[in-house]
Amino acid sequence: MHQTPTAHRIDPATGAMSHAAGQYEKRLRDLAGIYGDAGAFDRATAAEGDRIVYRVHDVRPAAKHGDLIFGTTFMEPGRIGDEFYMTRGHIHATANRPETYYGESGQGVMLLETPEGETEVIEIGPRTLVYVPPMWIHRSVNTGSEPLVMSFCYPSDSGQDYEIIARAGGMAKRIVADGEGWAAIDNPDYRPRDAEEIARVYATTD
Amino acid sequence: MHQTPTAHRIDPATGAMSHAAGQYEKRLRDLAGIYGDAGAFDRATAAEGDRIVYRVHDVRPAAKHGDLIFGTTFMEPGRIGDEFYMTRGHIHATANRPETYYGESGQGVMLLETPEGETEVIEIGPRTLVYVPPMWIHRSVNTGSEPLVMSFCYPSDSGQDYEIIARAGGMAKRIVADGEGWAAIDNPDYRPRDAEEIARVYATTD
Repeated sequence: MHQTPTAHRIDPATGAMSHAAGQYEKRLRDLAGIYGDAGAFDRATAAEGDRIVYRVHDVRPAAKHGDLIFGTTFMEPGRIGDEFYMTRGHIHATANRPETYYGESGQGVMLLETPEGETEVIEIGPRTLVYVPPMWIHRSVNTGSEPLVMSFCYPSDSGQDYEIIARAGGMAKRIVADGEGWAAIDNPDYRPRDAEEIARVYATTD
Repeated sequence: MHQTPTAHRIDPATGAMSHAAGQYEKRLRDLAGIYGDAGAFDRATAAEGDRIVYRVHDVRPAAKHGDLIFGTTFMEPGRIGDEFYMTRGHIHATANRPETYYGESGQGVMLLETPEGETEVIEIGPRTLVYVPPMWIHRSVNTGSEPLVMSFCYPSDSGQDYEIIARAGGMAKRIVADGEGWAAIDNPDYRPRDAEEIARVYATTD
């Protein structure tokens, strides 16, 4: 009748989560089009297209209103040209749904963007909790030399829209290597969303 | 127009959270009636009623549908008679709302109970994520000799009903010292909820 309470051990080095219900991986060849340097991407994919860039474990107790989904993201360190390994990124399919990310190990940034094109870049590391408010497109970037592992939590009726970024030619900013650190630079391929596209995002909210 | 993304450092030893918006403390004298041994409680309160039993930091970005509230709970170690220090406990005011708790430091248990009286006891410690499903009354207990610190996340339209436990004479089980560990024993004061009280809980759900 009632759902059963559960406990899950998280390994901060690998993101492995005990009793996780789901798992998926993204390999280099799955991520065509997200990096700015297409030539570097093609060369990397030809050499090691099977290479895992990130892996997600999650638990989805009930895909219904009012519940929560939680899990972990493990991201390998690496670059395509100057650009750090990153997730595809998404806005929630119901766009006014938030998400929390908590740093377990490694160093990275959360790259955030509103439908109107405002950008924020927030660093995440161990014991840092990043709050992604409703309406923000977000993508995780591993800016370190070690794996970046985070746990996350979001409402179970959020959903993911992974196409919003591709339709705009990427996010407004790219996170690239800058000496020992990182810098956010303008993405020359970015096309700001027009009023119709912005209205389409707001139409998903409740 | 949009809420601002935020980052919060969590101190695993104290539960302090940077940029927390709210904080409250519960002292021994605030917790009359929750422990089984009233004499031991009265003696402890006479001696040190100002003593902090637990402290909560939280961030409530928007108290509206679809958002999340997150924060930390810091619990001192201690006992009233044989019974370990614990939180008041609650069911969500909208009872079909879940919550996640993540162990930051220390050792404890989450004591859970359905309106119908089913009980679960789940251990929590560092890197353990406990999922409290919709409809479960829950209370945290510090069974260790060090502070118990957890971070938590729940839907912002959950609310808390703190009276549901008192109305039943406590929870069905009490967590008491047992040698170097803990045991869950029956609470002789517990009065199972009748059909009317159970219906009252279900009436809050959506």
